[in-house]
Amino acid sequence: MEKVKSIPMKLYIYSEKNYQEREVTLSQLESEESIFHSTSIDRFWLNLDEEDPVLLKKICELFKIHQLVQEDILLKGQRPKVEEYPHHLFIVAKMVFIQNDVMKMEQISFILGENYLLTFGEIEGDVFDRVRQKLKKEGTEVRAKGVDFLLYQLLDALVEGYYRTLEVMGEKIDQMEEGILSRPGTEEMKAIRSLKKDLLYLHKYAWPLREISSYLSKDDPLFINKETSMYFFDIHSQLMEVIDTIETYRELLAGLMDLSLSSVSYRLNEVMKVLTIISTIFIPLSFIAGVYGMNFKYMPELESRYGYPLAWASMGAVALGMLYYFKKKKWF
Amino acid sequence: MEKVKSIPMKLYIYSEKNYQEREVTLSQLESEESIFHSTSIDRFWLNLDEEDPVLLKKICELFKIHQLVQEDILLKGQRPKVEEYPHHLFIVAKMVFIQNDVMKMEQISFILGENYLLTFGEIEGDVFDRVRQKLKKEGTEVRAKGVDFLLYQLLDALVEGYYRTLEVMGEKIDQMEEGILSRPGTEEMKAIRSLKKDLLYLHKYAWPLREISSYLSKDDPLFINKETSMYFFDIHSQLMEVIDTIETYRELLAGLMDLSLSSVSYRLNEVMKVLTIISTIFIPLSFIAGVYGMNFKYMPELESRYGYPLAWASMGAVALGMLYYFKKKKWF
Amino acid sequence: MEKVKSIPMKLYIYSEKNYQEREVTLSQLESEESIFHSTSIDRFWLNLDEEDPVLLKKICELFKIHQLVQEDILLKGQRPKVEEYPHHLFIVAKMVFIQNDVMKMEQISFILGENYLLTFGEIEGDVFDRVRQKLKKEGTEVRAKGVDFLLYQLLDALVEGYYRTLEVMGEKIDQMEEGILSRPGTEEMKAIRSLKKDLLYLHKYAWPLREISSYLSKDDPLFINKETSMYFFDIHSQLMEVIDTIETYRELLAGLMDLSLSSVSYRLNEVMKVLTIISTIFIPLSFIAGVYGMNFKYMPELESRYGYPLAWASMGAVALGMLYYFKKKKWF
Amino acid sequence: MEKVKSIPMKLYIYSEKNYQEREVTLSQLESEESIFHSTSIDRFWLNLDEEDPVLLKKICELFKIHQLVQEDILLKGQRPKVEEYPHHLFIVAKMVFIQNDVMKMEQISFILGENYLLTFGEIEGDVFDRVRQKLKKEGTEVRAKGVDFLLYQLLDALVEGYYRTLEVMGEKIDQMEEGILSRPGTEEMKAIRSLKKDLLYLHKYAWPLREISSYLSKDDPLFINKETSMYFFDIHSQLMEVIDTIETYRELLAGLMDLSLSSVSYRLNEVMKVLTIISTIFIPLSFIAGVYGMNFKYMPELESRYGYPLAWASMGAVALGMLYYFKKKKWF
Amino acid sequence: MEKVKSIPMKLYIYSEKNYQEREVTLSQLESEESIFHSTSIDRFWLNLDEEDPVLLKKICELFKIHQLVQEDILLKGQRPKVEEYPHHLFIVAKMVFIQNDVMKMEQISFILGENYLLTFGEIEGDVFDRVRQKLKKEGTEVRAKGVDFLLYQLLDALVEGYYRTLEVMGEKIDQMEEGILSRPGTEEMKAIRSLKKDLLYLHKYAWPLREISSYLSKDDPLFINKETSMYFFDIHSQLMEVIDTIETYRELLAGLMDLSLSSVSYRLNEVMKVLTIISTIFIPLSFIAGVYGMNFKYMPELESRYGYPLAWASMGAVALGMLYYFKKKKWF
Repeated sequence: MEKVKSIPMKLYIYSEKNYQEREVTLSQLESEESIFHSTSIDRFWLNLDEEDPVLLKKICELFKIHQLVQEDILLKGQRPKVEEYPHHLFIVAKMVFIQNDVMKMEQISFILGENYLLTFGEIEGDVFDRVRQKLKKEGTEVRAKGVDFLLYQLLDALVEGYYRTLEVMGEKIDQMEEGILSRPGTEEMKAIRSLKKDLLYLHKYAWPLREISSYLSKDDPLFINKETSMYFFDIHSQLMEVIDTIETYRELLAGLMDLSLSSVSYRLNEVMKVLTIISTIFIPLSFIAGVYGMNFKYMPELESRYGYPLAWASMGAVALGMLYYFKKKKWF
Repeated sequence: MEKVKSIPMKLYIYSEKNYQEREVTLSQLESEESIFHSTSIDRFWLNLDEEDPVLLKKICELFKIHQLVQEDILLKGQRPKVEEYPHHLFIVAKMVFIQNDVMKMEQISFILGENYLLTFGEIEGDVFDRVRQKLKKEGTEVRAKGVDFLLYQLLDALVEGYYRTLEVMGEKIDQMEEGILSRPGTEEMKAIRSLKKDLLYLHKYAWPLREISSYLSKDDPLFINKETSMYFFDIHSQLMEVIDTIETYRELLAGLMDLSLSSVSYRLNEVMKVLTIISTIFIPLSFIAGVYGMNFKYMPELESRYGYPLAWASMGAVALGMLYYFKKKKWF
Repeated sequence: MEKVKSIPMKLYIYSEKNYQEREVTLSQLESEESIFHSTSIDRFWLNLDEEDPVLLKKICELFKIHQLVQEDILLKGQRPKVEEYPHHLFIVAKMVFIQNDVMKMEQISFILGENYLLTFGEIEGDVFDRVRQKLKKEGTEVRAKGVDFLLYQLLDALVEGYYRTLEVMGEKIDQMEEGILSRPGTEEMKAIRSLKKDLLYLHKYAWPLREISSYLSKDDPLFINKETSMYFFDIHSQLMEVIDTIETYRELLAGLMDLSLSSVSYRLNEVMKVLTIISTIFIPLSFIAGVYGMNFKYMPELESRYGYPLAWASMGAVALGMLYYFKKKKWF
Repeated sequence: MEKVKSIPMKLYIYSEKNYQEREVTLSQLESEESIFHSTSIDRFWLNLDEEDPVLLKKICELFKIHQLVQEDILLKGQRPKVEEYPHHLFIVAKMVFIQNDVMKMEQISFILGENYLLTFGEIEGDVFDRVRQKLKKEGTEVRAKGVDFLLYQLLDALVEGYYRTLEVMGEKIDQMEEGILSRPGTEEMKAIRSLKKDLLYLHKYAWPLREISSYLSKDDPLFINKETSMYFFDIHSQLMEVIDTIETYRELLAGLMDLSLSSVSYRLNEVMKVLTIISTIFIPLSFIAGVYGMNFKYMPELESRYGYPLAWASMGAVALGMLYYFKKKKWF
Repeated sequence: MEKVKSIPMKLYIYSEKNYQEREVTLSQLESEESIFHSTSIDRFWLNLDEEDPVLLKKICELFKIHQLVQEDILLKGQRPKVEEYPHHLFIVAKMVFIQNDVMKMEQISFILGENYLLTFGEIEGDVFDRVRQKLKKEGTEVRAKGVDFLLYQLLDALVEGYYRTLEVMGEKIDQMEEGILSRPGTEEMKAIRSLKKDLLYLHKYAWPLREISSYLSKDDPLFINKETSMYFFDIHSQLMEVIDTIETYRELLAGLMDLSLSSVSYRLNEVMKVLTIISTIFIPLSFIAGVYGMNFKYMPELESRYGYPLAWASMGAVALGMLYYFKKKKWF
């Protein structure tokens, strides 16, 4: 028989009146199996935050979860989706949050049964603390309603994570705009690119989420109460806003890229104008000076009393002519 | 109990014959509660233009408004949407207007009951004055018809705000076009970008509005009379025009950006041509002058009577050759 | 009572056998009101080519036209659309034509009743002369069939206006292509941009027309005979062709823009090569000449008999070396 | 009565056993009219490859073809479409082929009756020879089956023309790729543009064809046997492949354009580096040489024994410093 | 009669208990024909990995496969598709894998009957080894279930090939990003372009696959068990992920292209600044030196004791002025 590491899992047992929260091991879980299928009024949320194929398999067997679901939970490159199985509803989504100024992503799977909700994350830590606190407090809606409402609360918190991430990005974009006009360079390029990448992935995760929320609010799925579906519709319209905002930010970033490029090319223009003005003024002057630096024996101008002042005069005339030309061309 | 600031609200009570407009406080409202649910022929419009979560909560309780709606009114980053609840219709939209040459946006929520309409704005001031004046005047359609027609009038004024904003933008784009060709620069870039941003947000606000007007005109929603739906369809086709125009302006701006970039690069070309022509003519000439400025003891040319004129002649030949070359290349 | 300017309108009364065409004033129209609602076999086309809100209102009252239609006719920024009212069909579209080499647009409204057709333009002149001539001639289809067929004929002429405009644009694009490769510049940019703008607006007008033709051919609308709907389908597929062609031309223009930009940048490259070749050859030579132009007392080379020829030799060697380098780099 | 040029038409009369192919004139056709409407087992294909409005009109009258169809055949700017008329099915499409390395297009109209197929081209020559040969040979499917199968064979040959054209384009794109990297220039630009144009038009012709094949395979049209519809579905999926390939090639060409532009700009960079390195090394050196070429009376360095070598030394130091700087910047 | 090369084919005969794998020739196959149509519990998989039109024809006759299918298998430019025929289901798809760091593609056709599956590849070698091993092992699902499940396993392996290919591409993109910023050049351009091309084709192959998986999971096709359809849905959502990832990578590559272009243009800017700074400082200095190198007889400065130091002083002043100007312009 395969060995199972005893990774602690968190089990929340709650009803309108009661609340219990404890770390359980697989063996404890197995010994209490009966309660998961009982029709008592208590509801359960089991949360596992580490990847452990063997443990996962055991839990899946305990809850009679389909083989395909188990494979999907373990495969980390999953597209967010919802699937209805005879005994449970399976949802996989991406949790998004900012950590140390960097966008992080974690895949999270939800399995909703009649009176239980299982959640499987990849690493410790999630965006669900707000929900846990509500669960602890007596009298909150989440305590009074079924596990489908708990699922709503978790998905709501998950979508809020997208909102928060976008807010941080919005601020970054605003800051960038000023930076780019005053000093466009490779650093700015890299920052734009990095944000662009984050937005790309954010879109990749949020877009299929929309299908999930639409399904939960419209298609009358298993274990979702009619009245909860309205809440999922609220999540749906929040997701639409998230997606619209992502789109808007992508356009803003594309605009920043253009601005940066045009700013570089405008600056090049300025640089070249300076070079051209200085060069075209002094090159002819140097030529005149060069001519009278020649050592020919018979150069009448050199002997003349007024040669030197006349050379200066001609050089001045050339310089002024050039300046007039540039002025007329509006180069400065 | 929570304290409620006594923010004045405007209450409009009207019917075909009567019209009454006054500032009310929450307590006044509560004392008159009965009239909102009476089946008298009078109709009410309650307008609140400040954000006050506590006051809002009280009003919502008074009108038995769903918890989700209350949250949605307070959450400012809402996507425009329409939702049908058992006792009322909920619409949230973005009001757009130009203030001091800058595009401003304000979120506005509508709650339509059988004989009342509630509107919640963010700050004082809106685009509804035209409607208020019609409401005051006896004999207008808005006085004769139900609150659904008042809703139409307000949405119509709101959409007109989009029209006006687009008109101002259209004029700016026309002005820019001339500016860019005569003097492309960073200022123009910033102006294009700013307009682009405004158009992006305008699109973000107008696009989901379209879904609202379509819903109101087609899906036979609660509290909307069959004959009013035709008016909402008129709003719908105006919104289509707004969206088409936004699209057209975005393309025009993209074209301006291209024009600006190409104009900068064309100018660079001109600058470089000047530099190249001057440099390539004088550099060889200076070289010739340099050669005869060398101090070698044995340089036969220097002793020659015709050295100097011949040097000039050769320099002239080189210069003419270069000019001929550039002429042939059509550089000027 | 409001005063009504007596703007002459054109009234065409026709049937298979009879044809009558005359200018009428409002008062004449009012005195003949009965005939518009009679069930005689005669059919009427009333054409008004000037904007006159007061007159329009009178006519609308005469024909019992809905208030919204009247507003729509006067609002010039209308999106082309078709609307069915109890007593008439309302269509608004954009007429497009070329005048003095410039694309012009005029809004035109059609109101189709059982035996009459009203058309309202903005200014005198339209693209309907072809239809008027057919109407005059006995034995033509348009004389034999109902007012719905007259509507088809007018819309057909209107769509042909789009065709003609596109033809002119197609020729311009072909001419431009040659111009851009031989001499890219700001003029060409402006021409491309102007064409692009025209195509943008053409698309904006033609796209919703498609919805009109689709509606007229499929949805069995009021006052349109079953057998005429096939003709509207023909218009529909012509509009599809118009839209496809617009799309194709837009892509061609985008390609022209790219070509122009790349042509400018290719030319810059050529200019810079000339500058670089000339400069890098002569700058080192000038340096050598400069060295032997120094006035140090002790410069052994200067005294040498072979100094001068050797200087030339070294300069020649440098020049040849450079030329070889450029040749190897395939710069010319 | 209008005169009719006696343009020879090709008439193919065939059944499973018999095959007859001959050139006919209009009058011969008129005299044999009865056979076209007979219910004999023979099938007819009439092919006319020249534009002749008068002749066309006569044929249309002979076969009782709708007025609109006749107009559509003559109008050359038709969008490919299929239309069902009471007595026949009308299809118009674009034939595409390569002639002398240039893409050519010809409009072709098909009219399918119960036992006849009419085809009208613009000029002599088509892509149907393969089908004609099958028709000649006894025992082929096309001989055994109805005129709908002949239509399938002709459309199949037409779609193969698109395949062949795309193959030629694919090869051209591959060749271009190599050319652009080794020598980007105006010639390559023109070639890219020309291919792009061809692809644009190919897309314009192929896209609506897809609607035709979908209609023929799904909508159970007149005169198309149930079992033949499967064959039209095969054409449909071939067209999807054609359209996918066009899309792919367009992206490849856009990539080529980018490659070409970036290649030009990369080369400019290289050219400028050479200019900058040579200039920035020699300009300071020339300055030093210039200083000691001055003719001031009191210049202590000039008198010094070590002046000249020291001048060389300082010039060498400057040159080496510059080279080190460029090396550090990785310019070569 | 046509000759048939005896290309060895692999025949897998299996049931829950039995497994047999052997190479067969056509004649062996023909002699065993009966078993393919028997209703025994054994299932067959026949795999042919070489193109042989004659052999293919024979097999098709053996299995009564439609003529069109046979043509489709041989035509290598097929768009992936699924078609239902009376006696079998036909699927054609593209297998994708990485070989020697290069993306390779092979067309593969599947024919699914009641108890057999035929697969036709182009060359030896496929991505199905994982499936073959499962087939060998007793007790696996693939052995226990029908041929539709074997088809699922093969398609699953095929889609995994897309996943693997994308993983390799993802790594390449990450590596490129670093390379481009440190040294943008033609090599990087070529690498980007090559990846872009691969992604284009990958998209072309994967997109229609999605239609296949959707069909197999939803439309209740022939020979696919209800319970297997769920597995095909799993493939479907994997394909959606593949397509999303392709899209994301294409955007990342487009971003790389932009980064590369802007990096080149930024570098050009840097190069030009160096040239401009050095040139504009030394050109005026050289001019001053040139002036005092003139040989006029009457140049008072030359005689002056302080001429030389003053010349140096003025040159220093010019140089410092220039440096100050560039500093103020933030050029370094």
